[in-house]
Amino acid sequence: MCQLLGMNANTPTDIVFSFTGLATRAVEHKDGFGAAFFEDAGVRLFTDHASARQSPVADFLKRYPIGSLNVIAHIRKATQGSVALRNTHPFLRELWGRHWVMAHNGDLKGFRPRLHGAFRPVGETDSEHAFCWLLQELSKAHASVPPTTELTATLAELLPQAAAHGSFNLLLSDGRALWAHASTSLHWLQRCHPFRAARLKDEDLSIDFARVTTPQDRVVVVATEPLTDDECWTALQPGELQCFVDGAPA
Amino acid sequence: MCQLLGMNANTPTDIVFSFTGLATRAVEHKDGFGAAFFEDAGVRLFTDHASARQSPVADFLKRYPIGSLNVIAHIRKATQGSVALRNTHPFLRELWGRHWVMAHNGDLKGFRPRLHGAFRPVGETDSEHAFCWLLQELSKAHASVPPTTELTATLAELLPQAAAHGSFNLLLSDGRALWAHASTSLHWLQRCHPFRAARLKDEDLSIDFARVTTPQDRVVVVATEPLTDDECWTALQPGELQCFVDGAPA
Repeated sequence: MCQLLGMNANTPTDIVFSFTGLATRAVEHKDGFGAAFFEDAGVRLFTDHASARQSPVADFLKRYPIGSLNVIAHIRKATQGSVALRNTHPFLRELWGRHWVMAHNGDLKGFRPRLHGAFRPVGETDSEHAFCWLLQELSKAHASVPPTTELTATLAELLPQAAAHGSFNLLLSDGRALWAHASTSLHWLQRCHPFRAARLKDEDLSIDFARVTTPQDRVVVVATEPLTDDECWTALQPGELQCFVDGAPA
Repeated sequence: MCQLLGMNANTPTDIVFSFTGLATRAVEHKDGFGAAFFEDAGVRLFTDHASARQSPVADFLKRYPIGSLNVIAHIRKATQGSVALRNTHPFLRELWGRHWVMAHNGDLKGFRPRLHGAFRPVGETDSEHAFCWLLQELSKAHASVPPTTELTATLAELLPQAAAHGSFNLLLSDGRALWAHASTSLHWLQRCHPFRAARLKDEDLSIDFARVTTPQDRVVVVATEPLTDDECWTALQPGELQCFVDGAPA
């Protein structure tokens, strides 16, 4: 299985602290990693088929703070598809003139719906196939980019169809919102005023968020397993879909 | 105007030397940069709206050799569209289950063909609009991914339609081939056995390619202006389209 990390904020926020925690878990999840950072409608996508513990790209991301309102990161343990850049999450496509980014943790055995739209997988993973199907169905449901609330309603109809074939822990973003869907394991927390310090579970590293924030800042972090051991994380329930906008549940 | 850099090789080759030369020219071309590296069907895309002279991402690329058969890089001087990540070349889309990457130097004033297909620009540049139109027309001309020779023939019909509206110096790749189209300025050279040393025009930096290559290696480099002053560069003629495969004209 893989591990997911998502971030949604109301002010440009970096994920150096959380990504450092995630990368520590790349002992088992060594088959590549990726991270996508939205800046307005633009997106930066960093991927590597090397482990996030050894990759020079991951090392760069642990040192270089990129301010973003929506981030999706992923460390991979290959279950379907070889260890190659083309099979590395997150995946990126354009729909309605917006970039869409998705990362998946789980297995969708036998879920190979027909792709008759404009989206085709480049690699061999079940995840990228499901992403292409999801965008195909979204493009049929809406002629142009709808409000996020309408997208949430459409996703609530679509995601169970895929999740029925296995486990579909999912992070999805178009740069406006972060959608999180849980099958087996996905946790989230919100950080807001008054900010406190937090300590990574996997590494001897703490940060005092009060020193790097303003009282108006709000940040949601979503992760497969809680990244810190001194904050209160909430587990998404199996089948639960949550949309986050401006650092809060929408 | 912007500056382009392309590389096509028959063995994984890095562009650290050439990119260092290109980045030196980012004094005038300071409005962002990007570089896309294919690894088989997979692609890594690095972009930044900061200048390639100051950007930590560019600094990383000057130090980290990424072996690739096809690379497209671009430094931007904004003419249409604001300085933002969404307007930064190269642009990336998927067609026929392959990633397509394009960078453009020039202006296509008034070229806003109707986009009725699956590709929509995310930013505001004439370049991305032309890229979406090009992929739309390619997808109408071929039901699935054709051989590169057929694609060259289709591109030879399409590109003049855009180039008629201004200047369309273009680099395009799907990871199998590198296409170069010139309106005003594009130069290329091939490096092969026996390899020699080369010296950057813009910076006091030399490399002896004989030390880092094997006799079978072949590499084509394409650039807006020659990057070295001790090698023989060939200018593409206005309107000329050239396809490069395995480090040689195809």
